[in-house]
Amino acid sequence: MLPLQGDVTQVADAVSAVWVLTVSFLIFFMQPGFALLEAGQVRAKNAGNVVMKNMTDWSMGVIVFFLAGAGISTIAAALTASGTSLDIAGAFAYIDEPSGWVSWLFGAVFAMTAATIVSGAVAERMKFSAYVVYAVAMTAVIYPVIAGFAWGGGLLSADGFLGAAIGVGYKDFAGATVVHALGGIAGLTAAYVVGPRRGRYDSKGKAQPIPGHSVLFAVIGTLILAFGWYGFNVGTQGVLSDGQFMGEALGRVALNTTLAMGAGMLASSLVSYYIEGKPDPLFAANGLLAGLVAITGACAHVTWWGGILIGLIGGAQTPLVYRWVVDNLKIDDVCGVFAVHGSAGFIGTMLIPFFDVAGFSTAQLVMQVAGSVVIAGWTVLTTLVVMYALKYTIGVRVSDEEEELGLDLGEHGLATYPEFTADSGSSPITDG
Amino acid sequence: MLPLQGDVTQVADAVSAVWVLTVSFLIFFMQPGFALLEAGQVRAKNAGNVVMKNMTDWSMGVIVFFLAGAGISTIAAALTASGTSLDIAGAFAYIDEPSGWVSWLFGAVFAMTAATIVSGAVAERMKFSAYVVYAVAMTAVIYPVIAGFAWGGGLLSADGFLGAAIGVGYKDFAGATVVHALGGIAGLTAAYVVGPRRGRYDSKGKAQPIPGHSVLFAVIGTLILAFGWYGFNVGTQGVLSDGQFMGEALGRVALNTTLAMGAGMLASSLVSYYIEGKPDPLFAANGLLAGLVAITGACAHVTWWGGILIGLIGGAQTPLVYRWVVDNLKIDDVCGVFAVHGSAGFIGTMLIPFFDVAGFSTAQLVMQVAGSVVIAGWTVLTTLVVMYALKYTIGVRVSDEEEELGLDLGEHGLATYPEFTADSGSSPITDG
Amino acid sequence: MLPLQGDVTQVADAVSAVWVLTVSFLIFFMQPGFALLEAGQVRAKNAGNVVMKNMTDWSMGVIVFFLAGAGISTIAAALTASGTSLDIAGAFAYIDEPSGWVSWLFGAVFAMTAATIVSGAVAERMKFSAYVVYAVAMTAVIYPVIAGFAWGGGLLSADGFLGAAIGVGYKDFAGATVVHALGGIAGLTAAYVVGPRRGRYDSKGKAQPIPGHSVLFAVIGTLILAFGWYGFNVGTQGVLSDGQFMGEALGRVALNTTLAMGAGMLASSLVSYYIEGKPDPLFAANGLLAGLVAITGACAHVTWWGGILIGLIGGAQTPLVYRWVVDNLKIDDVCGVFAVHGSAGFIGTMLIPFFDVAGFSTAQLVMQVAGSVVIAGWTVLTTLVVMYALKYTIGVRVSDEEEELGLDLGEHGLATYPEFTADSGSSPITDG
Repeated sequence: MLPLQGDVTQVADAVSAVWVLTVSFLIFFMQPGFALLEAGQVRAKNAGNVVMKNMTDWSMGVIVFFLAGAGISTIAAALTASGTSLDIAGAFAYIDEPSGWVSWLFGAVFAMTAATIVSGAVAERMKFSAYVVYAVAMTAVIYPVIAGFAWGGGLLSADGFLGAAIGVGYKDFAGATVVHALGGIAGLTAAYVVGPRRGRYDSKGKAQPIPGHSVLFAVIGTLILAFGWYGFNVGTQGVLSDGQFMGEALGRVALNTTLAMGAGMLASSLVSYYIEGKPDPLFAANGLLAGLVAITGACAHVTWWGGILIGLIGGAQTPLVYRWVVDNLKIDDVCGVFAVHGSAGFIGTMLIPFFDVAGFSTAQLVMQVAGSVVIAGWTVLTTLVVMYALKYTIGVRVSDEEEELGLDLGEHGLATYPEFTADSGSSPITDG
Repeated sequence: MLPLQGDVTQVADAVSAVWVLTVSFLIFFMQPGFALLEAGQVRAKNAGNVVMKNMTDWSMGVIVFFLAGAGISTIAAALTASGTSLDIAGAFAYIDEPSGWVSWLFGAVFAMTAATIVSGAVAERMKFSAYVVYAVAMTAVIYPVIAGFAWGGGLLSADGFLGAAIGVGYKDFAGATVVHALGGIAGLTAAYVVGPRRGRYDSKGKAQPIPGHSVLFAVIGTLILAFGWYGFNVGTQGVLSDGQFMGEALGRVALNTTLAMGAGMLASSLVSYYIEGKPDPLFAANGLLAGLVAITGACAHVTWWGGILIGLIGGAQTPLVYRWVVDNLKIDDVCGVFAVHGSAGFIGTMLIPFFDVAGFSTAQLVMQVAGSVVIAGWTVLTTLVVMYALKYTIGVRVSDEEEELGLDLGEHGLATYPEFTADSGSSPITDG
Repeated sequence: MLPLQGDVTQVADAVSAVWVLTVSFLIFFMQPGFALLEAGQVRAKNAGNVVMKNMTDWSMGVIVFFLAGAGISTIAAALTASGTSLDIAGAFAYIDEPSGWVSWLFGAVFAMTAATIVSGAVAERMKFSAYVVYAVAMTAVIYPVIAGFAWGGGLLSADGFLGAAIGVGYKDFAGATVVHALGGIAGLTAAYVVGPRRGRYDSKGKAQPIPGHSVLFAVIGTLILAFGWYGFNVGTQGVLSDGQFMGEALGRVALNTTLAMGAGMLASSLVSYYIEGKPDPLFAANGLLAGLVAITGACAHVTWWGGILIGLIGGAQTPLVYRWVVDNLKIDDVCGVFAVHGSAGFIGTMLIPFFDVAGFSTAQLVMQVAGSVVIAGWTVLTTLVVMYALKYTIGVRVSDEEEELGLDLGEHGLATYPEFTADSGSSPITDG
């Protein structure tokens, strides 16, 4: 009998691994999604710089997260929960344990998603070298600490100091706040420190449009992201738990993800139609993403109509928050990452208790607000520290001349589209 | 013993769910494939409108299909088969049954594929608002009824009124006709009602070329579609049936899909070479797709050499049918969706009995023709009703001025490529 | 008892099939990755030709590999190993065995990867018809023989004549040399025979830059390739072996693949920064790919720090070898396929013994060198034979006029971007 039971266990482990690996690949594929989305929303002269930043935060980030981030996450959890003891060697034991490497990869693709969001906010003027340093801080410390707080049994979990005080753990199923809102508010903060692009505000402080070079690329990037998001959300749900098939849980996450992205796109389009008189494809795309962000933390917890409503709210707030950031905060968040990833993530996650299939709980609502405050506070604070440290050392911004010329030529010595843009013929383009 | 047997069943269910979810994600990924394919085949001034239509039919469609379409499909089946009774509440019971939501998603991605095909036919002149209404009709009624007829145990199944009369059920494994030909002939019909683009025919009625703005995007979209199509075709085959591994069935579907897409690309290239004197990458791409469409219904049923032949025929007819539609029917089917999805789907599905591993059956051939007639008839009829209703109410076509200016500016107030197209500098582009 | 044990086996087979099919689809998806990467690195006037070549080698290739290549691979193995007897009918038996078709597809997507690499080297001047013939030779004979030698139990395996002589089998886990270096050195050889593009070298023989038309497309193609590469490398590792879950092996392959791609990107960027004074996104992208190539053979064998080092070396050598090929060998390898796929693959595979978790083995190192020599020698020799045969019959190169005009117009009668490129307005573009 034993060998047979063993066989079933081995096969069950294999199923779970096929699932985790497949969705990890999908989540990795969000990297070209972000690259296209962001590149489409900047001018052609900065498109190469955007994708260089994206490639670098991934490439640097995975190594940093392997050698430091994943262990720091465990330490952050241990330091902020009762009943755990600090074990630094144990926190880094995964480095030499092949049996944990599939799980490490699953964690890493979430970390890199948080990191790459920032590049969209600071595009078209942030110095490449400063961005690289910030990306290291993000993947070594800023994100890992929050992941440890929320998912690693730390501060925000039921056994964490804050969770125990409030009496429940923080609910963010797949990272609406832990990943997306963290990235979104980090981007907002970094964009504030870097300052607006030249020409973004006129002499009276009124925002001037600086259209990106391809709405098509932005939309295709959006749909690539949506594809990867199925891995992000549905993949966070295991297929087996204690030997039981999790069919209903998988169905709930898949359905809510689908309905919320649809609702987010429709709501953002309608609001942009109301504001601008015409439905805007770029707000439609960003609304679809905001619907996904809003449901990311909630998808496992809420009813299907809750999923639609959360998606609608996530999408509807996108054009409004975007304009508020640009017009009132006067922060030049180029790709609107705060509206799409930040506010959508916080709002969607705070709405969970109202649509929870487990019923409304005041303690849960308090915890959702408290958790959001912790995540926002930590991220803003650490980002300010790193960004100001960079500002007063290597500098965070390219020169005015370089910004005018474009960061592709300035930072990388090439023209992204030497044949398509009028003035590129005279550019000192390099070999390649 | 029982717990152990239970364990195996749970793991088996998990395997099937991993498969169904993975392929559903792949089929969703056909959305950016269609978006790029269609955008590449229209002029730059209409590319944003094309992708806006694609995002909208998906986003609106999933909500409509959840609240209406999937239930209407069940009702359509029940009304057209013997031994079933109408149970409206039961038809919509899935809305509150989480255990059925994974299956719902699998059905939804097929429905959205049918819906999105139409946008390619009516591109560059159909009004956005009218398109949205038509997309609702498609996802609520037009497609669901046919899915119920063919796959839900309705009219065309062995127990359906028509299937019982002929003595066999209709064979369309993964939707060559139920999804693709339905979308293709709907597109043809809608393009007929909308009328040709300005300048498509000269004063003598001779067709004039209107090249799309990027062959590269069309080809990349094609290859994205082919990737998703593996999910579409191979994913329709379950991996386990009554506890038995379906290795041979999976192999047949995977092989036939692969060979037919290759054969379709080669045949279409050769025919375009014969007609134009040079092999045309755009017809090559569309031939690859037509090979896929042609084998979609047949892949589980036919021999490998039948797969190659069906692919060859599907591809070879693409340039010929495209020219016939444009030159003889005088219908301006912009992306050739009838040749690629319509005729290829009908032909491939009617060819099944000739290459069936189960041997030739006259009754099956009769059923294949009858089923195709039902699908074509229903789709043309309902599309005409909806399109004419729209034509005589809100209108189906943008103004001549707007068509000249481009639908991106006209319908959405933006330029898709403000830096790449010569006249975009003076466009009243919006913020974003 | 028996039925139950049978059930477990069936479910285990289903898990393995889900894995193999999913990764096969991912590897197929490398086709649009290569198409975008290569198209971005050529001028706009040749982009359509590049993707036409890519579509053709896939489409022609799968049919050739089904009808000939896979069987020839088995024959090549049987002829070069002891204890095997030549069985030509048996070698082609898979053609009528549906149970083997999933495995065939898994083999086919590797073969097509090797084939499509060549098009990047010979872009912008090789005749389409000659390319098609070469692609047939590649998928029928050149690649299949090496696959049979290394993976089919032939010459390089432990029982092969060479493996037996040296005492160990050749280690190339997922095809760093069998697939990539073979494609890379074939491309180099073919580019040598075709000769450099007009204007690539000035009158003094000094290389002149000919920038590709879109760095963005090249980078997005790179990230698509990286996504597919997870299928390529991790998918080569089975999830179950003799009923045991292979969790550690999967983890090792997934981790090493991830770390090496990151390291390759960083190292190539740093070297390009050292050479050019600025980090070059195109070398960054190609370095990421070279890191992947370098680890492809090693990922299952080496330690994690070995994975990082192999990735670093693979990336760092990319700009250096590229310049050496262009400046010293005077071979115009347009997309640098030798540096990215060739040298990176050979180096990474020869480094395996130094970082092998099984410990260093001199015999293994000898075998790694010997195997690389066999693969390089066979590929150069057969490529020279085919290319010179083509050169002295149908010709391998377009006319100077056609090269100047662009291969899109010359070979295919169309402009890829009729609206974006300055001179395309007057082009005799075709319908489509």
